[in-house]
Amino acid sequence: MQLKNDLLLRALRKEKVERPPVWMMRQAGRYLPDYMKLKAKYDFFTRVQTPELACEITLQPIDQIGVDAAIIFSDILVIPQAMGAEVLMEEGKGPSLPNVIKNQKDIDALITDNVEESLSYVMKALTLIKQELNGRVPLIGFAGAPFTILCYMVEGKGSKTWEKAKQFCFTQPQLAHQLLQKITGITIAYLKAQTKAGADVVQVFDSWSGCLSPQDFKVFAQPYLVQIADALKDDAPVILFPKGSWYALEDLSMSGASGLGIDWCISPQYARELTNNDITLQGNFDPAKLLLPIPEIKKAVHEMIDAFGVQNYIANLGHGITPNIPVDNAKAFVEAVKEYRPNQD
Amino acid sequence: MQLKNDLLLRALRKEKVERPPVWMMRQAGRYLPDYMKLKAKYDFFTRVQTPELACEITLQPIDQIGVDAAIIFSDILVIPQAMGAEVLMEEGKGPSLPNVIKNQKDIDALITDNVEESLSYVMKALTLIKQELNGRVPLIGFAGAPFTILCYMVEGKGSKTWEKAKQFCFTQPQLAHQLLQKITGITIAYLKAQTKAGADVVQVFDSWSGCLSPQDFKVFAQPYLVQIADALKDDAPVILFPKGSWYALEDLSMSGASGLGIDWCISPQYARELTNNDITLQGNFDPAKLLLPIPEIKKAVHEMIDAFGVQNYIANLGHGITPNIPVDNAKAFVEAVKEYRPNQD
Repeated sequence: MQLKNDLLLRALRKEKVERPPVWMMRQAGRYLPDYMKLKAKYDFFTRVQTPELACEITLQPIDQIGVDAAIIFSDILVIPQAMGAEVLMEEGKGPSLPNVIKNQKDIDALITDNVEESLSYVMKALTLIKQELNGRVPLIGFAGAPFTILCYMVEGKGSKTWEKAKQFCFTQPQLAHQLLQKITGITIAYLKAQTKAGADVVQVFDSWSGCLSPQDFKVFAQPYLVQIADALKDDAPVILFPKGSWYALEDLSMSGASGLGIDWCISPQYARELTNNDITLQGNFDPAKLLLPIPEIKKAVHEMIDAFGVQNYIANLGHGITPNIPVDNAKAFVEAVKEYRPNQD
Repeated sequence: MQLKNDLLLRALRKEKVERPPVWMMRQAGRYLPDYMKLKAKYDFFTRVQTPELACEITLQPIDQIGVDAAIIFSDILVIPQAMGAEVLMEEGKGPSLPNVIKNQKDIDALITDNVEESLSYVMKALTLIKQELNGRVPLIGFAGAPFTILCYMVEGKGSKTWEKAKQFCFTQPQLAHQLLQKITGITIAYLKAQTKAGADVVQVFDSWSGCLSPQDFKVFAQPYLVQIADALKDDAPVILFPKGSWYALEDLSMSGASGLGIDWCISPQYARELTNNDITLQGNFDPAKLLLPIPEIKKAVHEMIDAFGVQNYIANLGHGITPNIPVDNAKAFVEAVKEYRPNQD
């Protein structure tokens, strides 16, 4: 089906656009009252595993906020689940994995095939969403990056420093690479299945790669990101988002990826310089600024677009929108991009 | 008194040294069995507020690990306490401040004078430590940077994203600057008192400045760091450690500071480039690597010194040593610096 709004795809193909496309990480989520109603009725994994619910949640920001892309409501930890790990999601506490990976036996026991079956609910949701979108905007699928998934599988829960996960990598690099390669393999199969089921674009979230030094990123994160980007590039455009790893932008701009996500801790100008102005960049509004008065949000968004430029750019946050943001402020972010005219402020 | 080992001071004055000085952030702490014995007997604030205990803890790593500098055992949250805020320290939970700063009234109520009196126990501890050190190594005093102290005073507890603190800064910048200026004033008085009491060097920890964009760092962190460095520079050499804020190194290298601390998320080469090779750098070993086998720790330390160079450099971690590090591994880190010969590996 022909897309009515293909701004995101054109930006990722580096085609000329009249304005940048805009979407927001976690755009389907807790700042939306309609999401909160579903959250009150169904627990987290019911919402994720029921295609009709995932579809409804995914569409909410399309109808209500006016973003230029849908991203499937799901979670990066479905991959550890598909590999056989138990994942608990306790309200207000974040995820936990009671059985952490410690040794060769744990890695040998992991499931690495049949992801189309074990995560069939994701593919069903994508197909349903694609149908319901009816060509309005492109649909983004996603997965966690192998290093970030390793973090959870080894640490067992969220962490500020990912000390255990890193110590596992540094002291048992052979085991770490086996685990990373297994995650990479199943993630490639998973993302390919997502594109077959309806995803027009896929994004890979390396949410915790920023805890690695530039040197260690090259060892434990980059090769697996590059494998995924290269394996997927003929199926759909790939956006890599190695949060915090500004130092990797130059290398990653030479991978098979079509876009790179960045957070607010690097200036647009320097991100362009590092990537030789040669790849589409996505980001990097600090979500904490969405609490500003609306005219100030709009001014800040316009300054951001001035800095990135209209072409080869996807307006987004540098991290997920937080629950305390008023819906009108989220809308203002999106409207600001749509209203943008060069040097208007 | 003449110092027997003045490597740290010479490195900060950019004088030629035969090898880099070495110390470790949190070198007096939970990885040391003798510290754990005192921790079992006395609660956190008793350890901090009793000069004899603070002295004993400060000296442990000098005797046991062989570092080239002592840093007083204390806490950055003594400043909110001196300003009238209640600070709770619950075992395993981190600090909390029950009465957060919300408005003008809260800021008006803050105490900003008499810090020499209210924190006299710190000055007494410094004088005692200086005496007990008997010139063996220099003594480092410290304080939290104004932005980091604001984070705790506004957020009320530790955070991954410091959302509330940042939203306070962005939406009420006038109040934020009043608060930052009050913290800056008392911190300058506090650090000056520390140098009078015996501190040979002072370090300012901006532990959370890395949550700010380069642009916002220039507004909410940098001016106050620069004020402190400029106010202290005639009293003692100042080391600024804006963790995560690699983007500020160039600007800060032009402040009154004698040294800049960096974490492992920037390469030594790029940090040298940003600072025009013109200021002493301190860091940046990833503490997670202290769990490596000892020969590998030593190899990694030697590579780090190769990368920074012997001159204008202080070997250190990029963040505090963690409780699970064996004492022998901490010793190996220090020994590796002492054994360093150029291009020996």
